[in-house]
Amino acid sequence: MPRSSAVRPEEIRRHNLSLLLNEIHTRGELSRTDLTARLGLNRSTIGALVSDLVELGLVSEYIPARGDRAGRPSHVVAPRPDGPWVLAAEVQVERILVASVGLGGRVHARVETPVDVNAATPAMLASQIAREATRLADAMPPGATLLGTGVSVPGTVRRRDGLVEHAPNLGWREVAFADILSAQLDYGVDVLVGNDANLGALAEHQRGAARGLDNVIFLNGSVGVGGGVIADGAGLQGTDGFAGEIGHMMLNPDGPSCHCGSSGCIETYIGEHALLRAAGVTEGFGPATTAAVLAAAEAGEPLALNAVNQVSLWLGRTLANLVNVFNPEAVIVGGSLAGVVRLGRAVVEAELGRRAMAAARAAVRLLPPGLGSESSLLGAAELAFQSLLAAPDAAVSAPTSRLAN
Amino acid sequence: MPRSSAVRPEEIRRHNLSLLLNEIHTRGELSRTDLTARLGLNRSTIGALVSDLVELGLVSEYIPARGDRAGRPSHVVAPRPDGPWVLAAEVQVERILVASVGLGGRVHARVETPVDVNAATPAMLASQIAREATRLADAMPPGATLLGTGVSVPGTVRRRDGLVEHAPNLGWREVAFADILSAQLDYGVDVLVGNDANLGALAEHQRGAARGLDNVIFLNGSVGVGGGVIADGAGLQGTDGFAGEIGHMMLNPDGPSCHCGSSGCIETYIGEHALLRAAGVTEGFGPATTAAVLAAAEAGEPLALNAVNQVSLWLGRTLANLVNVFNPEAVIVGGSLAGVVRLGRAVVEAELGRRAMAAARAAVRLLPPGLGSESSLLGAAELAFQSLLAAPDAAVSAPTSRLAN
Repeated sequence: MPRSSAVRPEEIRRHNLSLLLNEIHTRGELSRTDLTARLGLNRSTIGALVSDLVELGLVSEYIPARGDRAGRPSHVVAPRPDGPWVLAAEVQVERILVASVGLGGRVHARVETPVDVNAATPAMLASQIAREATRLADAMPPGATLLGTGVSVPGTVRRRDGLVEHAPNLGWREVAFADILSAQLDYGVDVLVGNDANLGALAEHQRGAARGLDNVIFLNGSVGVGGGVIADGAGLQGTDGFAGEIGHMMLNPDGPSCHCGSSGCIETYIGEHALLRAAGVTEGFGPATTAAVLAAAEAGEPLALNAVNQVSLWLGRTLANLVNVFNPEAVIVGGSLAGVVRLGRAVVEAELGRRAMAAARAAVRLLPPGLGSESSLLGAAELAFQSLLAAPDAAVSAPTSRLAN
Repeated sequence: MPRSSAVRPEEIRRHNLSLLLNEIHTRGELSRTDLTARLGLNRSTIGALVSDLVELGLVSEYIPARGDRAGRPSHVVAPRPDGPWVLAAEVQVERILVASVGLGGRVHARVETPVDVNAATPAMLASQIAREATRLADAMPPGATLLGTGVSVPGTVRRRDGLVEHAPNLGWREVAFADILSAQLDYGVDVLVGNDANLGALAEHQRGAARGLDNVIFLNGSVGVGGGVIADGAGLQGTDGFAGEIGHMMLNPDGPSCHCGSSGCIETYIGEHALLRAAGVTEGFGPATTAAVLAAAEAGEPLALNAVNQVSLWLGRTLANLVNVFNPEAVIVGGSLAGVVRLGRAVVEAELGRRAMAAARAAVRLLPPGLGSESSLLGAAELAFQSLLAAPDAAVSAPTSRLAN
């Protein structure tokens, strides 16, 4: 059952270079002493690898003004502020987010544009993203190289080519959004597309609430409910990249009809529309209404409170199934569902305790996202950084397009 | 997000030695030409690695009597018949299986002993296994080294120490079965314990129906229902090793009470007792009765047929949830549930088609186990082989106990 390929001696340097850059990318900056300890390599090897990264224009070193200890302080290795960067975009139902992100996860700039997804075609959304991208690119330091673009989409995305197979809340089926956006972007860099919950899990694992944890579920709940799973340290993809469709796990065969063709899916119980309907809302569905219902529940309004408790009960059932199947260390609940957990936590925990296997239940913590509402956007940036992180020398020594300015 | 540690040059040889032994172990035997092609290393490196494995007493080479092609035939590398071996044991509700297994998955001998698990303590079962082990060891070629022992148990097993946390159908809670068996075995080798479905998945992936597939679920259904998941090429463990408790995924909050404390668990709908009750059986539950009900359904007896269809409907729902969450290439259904699939396949497929996301549904095949009813037993052998396969030089050059004979 060989799970990796054979290693040739010449591949060691790249492997270790990749590990080192990953450490700096994850932590923001690290002293040479820390790098030596974390990687288990000797000081001279670390020195040589750092020199390589400096030469590639990826990191710079500085000597801290004051060491914490006596003696000569260790050099600190940090991403170069004018180093390579990526474009990250997130397509949501009501808005588009676009950001320029550097190594270390540093957000240079971020713009938010409201859109009416029902009125806009994928090409219109792409051209909106491209317009924002040009503005962000113009604001980058001269010479900073654009590495690639990552896009988060609320739908199933085929791993081999990034095709958006189905994004029900955008009304998309089989949309080659990477191609559409590439045609508009004109920087000649790769555009990679990923599922919002998978990308959220990636970013939370890299630099959010799940950092250092190997088994984590990121449950992203707004109108749709999606899941991203980190299993034994890696993102769960499945054969085609469709793994994690937690919103369409059935919790009751006689439950409400779901747009997916099944019934009693998790989404029909804990999606935003379920909360709103339970609170007696019949029209004007949207983030503002959801926020109003959560605020009313917090103020003790009985119908709203009852709606939160009802959604919390089903969220507890959802979590119990996930805990039994994945035995995670943490479940991170994001989106508007995070608000439900805040108010209905006791109900969630009671139902989880009742239905999950005791030992698996004992291992899991219920956490809010460490990256607030930015998990998926930052995950899109991580997606665009992956090829650089895997082979730092190949990615920047190969001819890459530079911005015109 | 470093997922592996830094590599030192001296570790390359071990890594490649491990890959090569894995290939031979998985395939049974391979020519040097095949090994060269499969590992992507050159002929002289392969030659040197094979020599190392020969010297370690793990493999031998022979020249095939007739090559298929003209010219000198390539040497074939095969596990040594008198090479190291492992003991594999499987504790089931009604019987114990013990086998001696060599590299390449070759079963030297296998014994089956009926037991009454309700009357037997773990220590009594361990002493039964130890008695059979002595007989199997006596039958091995002189000088063959016992490497270790693997045990399959129908319960949740803690990964860090092999504690059987809960095996409801054996009546075990927190049983340190590895220690209990070690004390009786007296060979001074490690005893490793694993969950039956996880081990079944491991063996099916290594040498059964899932060979070469990266995303597979092994659903093992008899009295209890367990799951083993291969995700992106590796066994899904979860934080403590409890992942895959598919039998306790809830499919209906108002469903039948389950011994786990929840209700409407999968096990209450597709476990053997559900089949028997639906068929009107009220006593004499056991494998013979289950076989009789399946035979009656096959003969067209209406009540039995209806029971099979009812279980098939719920199995379809189970599979839909698994397909949505894991996007596997295959689901292998084993145990007595395999018989249900054989008879109720149309019902299973219809419900799966109705409730799974179309793209994920299109990717999955429903398969019978490639190893018949031996998946978990052979998985226990794989568990015992893992340390040898990871570091062939360390495992056999370190002092290991040899049998007395």
